[in-house]
Amino acid sequence: MSKLVSSLRESIRLAGLRDGMTVSFHHHLRNGDKVLNLVMAEIAEMGFRDIHINASSFFDVHEPLVTHMQNGVVTGLETAYMSKKVGDVICAGILQEPVRFYTHGGRADAIMSGRSHIDVAFIAASAADNMGNCTGRVGPSAFGALAYPVADALKADKVVVITDCLMPYPLTDPSIEETQVDYVVQVDEIGDPAGVASGTTRITADPIALYIAHLAAEIMDAAGCIQNGMSFQTGAGGATLATAMYLHRKMKQRQVCGSFALGGITGYIVDMFRDGCFEKILDTQCFDLKAVESLREDPQHLEISTIRYASPAVRSAAVNSLDVVILGATQIDTGFNVNVHTTSDGRIMGGSGGHTDCAAGAKLSMILSPLIRQRLPMVVDRVNCISTPGELVDVFVSQYGIAVNPQKKELAELLSAKGLPVLSMDALKQEAEKICGIPRQIQRQGRPVAVVLDRNGRKQDEIRAIPM
Amino acid sequence: MSKLVSSLRESIRLAGLRDGMTVSFHHHLRNGDKVLNLVMAEIAEMGFRDIHINASSFFDVHEPLVTHMQNGVVTGLETAYMSKKVGDVICAGILQEPVRFYTHGGRADAIMSGRSHIDVAFIAASAADNMGNCTGRVGPSAFGALAYPVADALKADKVVVITDCLMPYPLTDPSIEETQVDYVVQVDEIGDPAGVASGTTRITADPIALYIAHLAAEIMDAAGCIQNGMSFQTGAGGATLATAMYLHRKMKQRQVCGSFALGGITGYIVDMFRDGCFEKILDTQCFDLKAVESLREDPQHLEISTIRYASPAVRSAAVNSLDVVILGATQIDTGFNVNVHTTSDGRIMGGSGGHTDCAAGAKLSMILSPLIRQRLPMVVDRVNCISTPGELVDVFVSQYGIAVNPQKKELAELLSAKGLPVLSMDALKQEAEKICGIPRQIQRQGRPVAVVLDRNGRKQDEIRAIPM
Repeated sequence: MSKLVSSLRESIRLAGLRDGMTVSFHHHLRNGDKVLNLVMAEIAEMGFRDIHINASSFFDVHEPLVTHMQNGVVTGLETAYMSKKVGDVICAGILQEPVRFYTHGGRADAIMSGRSHIDVAFIAASAADNMGNCTGRVGPSAFGALAYPVADALKADKVVVITDCLMPYPLTDPSIEETQVDYVVQVDEIGDPAGVASGTTRITADPIALYIAHLAAEIMDAAGCIQNGMSFQTGAGGATLATAMYLHRKMKQRQVCGSFALGGITGYIVDMFRDGCFEKILDTQCFDLKAVESLREDPQHLEISTIRYASPAVRSAAVNSLDVVILGATQIDTGFNVNVHTTSDGRIMGGSGGHTDCAAGAKLSMILSPLIRQRLPMVVDRVNCISTPGELVDVFVSQYGIAVNPQKKELAELLSAKGLPVLSMDALKQEAEKICGIPRQIQRQGRPVAVVLDRNGRKQDEIRAIPM
Repeated sequence: MSKLVSSLRESIRLAGLRDGMTVSFHHHLRNGDKVLNLVMAEIAEMGFRDIHINASSFFDVHEPLVTHMQNGVVTGLETAYMSKKVGDVICAGILQEPVRFYTHGGRADAIMSGRSHIDVAFIAASAADNMGNCTGRVGPSAFGALAYPVADALKADKVVVITDCLMPYPLTDPSIEETQVDYVVQVDEIGDPAGVASGTTRITADPIALYIAHLAAEIMDAAGCIQNGMSFQTGAGGATLATAMYLHRKMKQRQVCGSFALGGITGYIVDMFRDGCFEKILDTQCFDLKAVESLREDPQHLEISTIRYASPAVRSAAVNSLDVVILGATQIDTGFNVNVHTTSDGRIMGGSGGHTDCAAGAKLSMILSPLIRQRLPMVVDRVNCISTPGELVDVFVSQYGIAVNPQKKELAELLSAKGLPVLSMDALKQEAEKICGIPRQIQRQGRPVAVVLDRNGRKQDEIRAIPM
């Protein structure tokens, strides 16, 4: 018995794909992914129409989707993140049906609960055996954690594993097990591992971002977070990553050892881990090849599924044990609502990913951003899109000062008492407007091109078309 | 947030146990288990009645159950194996409701499919963190794989983890994750690890059993099974284990390296693995402490859930990739049906466990048994209880010769051609009867005290009360 089939086309045929069905993909290969394009090209060639795609994220590399959407091959998208090239055509109204934006944890729950049904899951794996046990940790295209498609594999009607590295049965420590897999297909290349490190995963050199990061580390310190057993997550952006650098220094100075670093993992977090700052890493996504190597080699660098990472419906997720999370924003408003979906002028260039999940779970959630970006104030009356609702956000950190959510009075007093520049969000907004002037409010008038769902799948906001 | 509760009683209360509900346990601590007795004593003291127990196995250490059954605290049992002390009172008719006997894989599927509902799963873990991530691999009461309760944890309404070793969050490589766990209870001792090695897990010194084992290895050889990449499972009984010894010699002589050894794992299989006979071990249950240590230390000794081991309903289970399985029997009949549930006189002292699952999955399934046991013929017209149906059995090996299932004509010819003593099952039966005489057929007249289900949950046979 073997589940190997001769070609992608054969697997699509055997999986029983029909017009109108939903297929799914994961984004662990990030901007180096080749699988989504390969499969969708095959689906298009086979003449299917009205296909929905549920992908944990879409990257610029997936631009060929534009043609498939123009041609009616693809008529619906569900995701947790969408970068600019796909985002632009969505904003231009290429699809009749609004894109459904989840959080990472919300996507896992939507799939597990059956609210989001997947007919055929296509899972890129850097190594697999002939029965479908598969991983992202080894093989020439190793990309690390294989966390997002765990839910897809558990719930999809048919599961196809696509690999460029077949290994003997039984594969060691599969992230997805043969119990879930119907077919295995071997292709030349699932992706370009160099693309794994796409996105801004270097520590910033920008002095403003460094100052903000420094301030964020001071806030953690003042709030008493820097202590043995602490847990921490930061993003891969320049300023959020710089916070890790300042935290690193403080932890080393005081010989503090935290319990775990969580989330998408960069080489910098691996450095902190190796330097004794954390006992363990809980990894849902490797942002660079140093993280991939650490996950493969270090037994205390642990892979967790997105379900365990952040599902709001399980009995506990890792985010529930998180002390501090450092997050970014494209906008924040006076109600502390955060936008990470669109630019200031309303174009899609992101998504919640784990933003909302971590803000909801962490004891201290901080949003870091310069007060002004591209001559526009970051603080506004109402964000273009509520990605993470203000009630989940504790602190906003800018180069002009810190705003603390009014729900967290004690924290504000504590930070003020320690001499940190605590201001009101209104004061920060006025500061920005003093410099930039008051920007014209964009008109949210176009038809809805995307709906933003909260962690539990309820509508939280929508994104409207931008007349081109 | 923490899931730690102060006592077992508190966990039972919080889990909302009510009369008539089903609780579940696993048997990885085998005859050293203390958790089932601890929990059931508490449940009895709290005054609950009409409780059903779904346990992956019952051992003699669980004899206190007899009192709970007498008192109406426990009124139903579901399991895959039951040793003599509990078996005897079941045969005497202590319960009105027949015991439901599953296979290991069938139990996993019954739970996963919802046919067998668990209200509260109590899961003994040798180490756990405060959120319920848990394992059997580390801690003072380490017992190895934590494979059986994976299904329980996924499907039970409430899940209580019971440990004698709390570790800091996040526990490394949990077998059951926090996503599934409601409560964590710390107790003094979950069991006596020495009891893990209960049962006959030593190579036999009995010359007849050794001869049978030798013959079994010759059959594997003649059938062409001893080659690179081969996979193998054997039980923990003396003769089946001796087969491993003869196989070991042949593999070393020819420098054959198999792909994996499967199933319940003994120190002897670990020796073969370390000696280069197998690339990997897929372990569902550690039969002794050497296996426990190997599972903890060796990254190629892999733990798999019972779902992946043997569920008949998943897209593939490990047994589907199994080449050879060596199994025991208390009786076999002329239709190759095998009994491992009862003695020749009809008393319950076992169960299918993984017997049927492996026979169904393996390319070559062999039943090893002396032709005569306690002056009774092993080969009969009809076994007292069909544990594994004859269509799944390929070869019966006794000291008087080999019988090959008539469905496998080519195999019989091959073995004969190689000079092995192939006889018909009838001839073996006559041989036995020549020596012992024809035994009086036991009367299957009492009311049913147990129903034996096949892998898919359909009734396969029943076991009747024995008048006391």
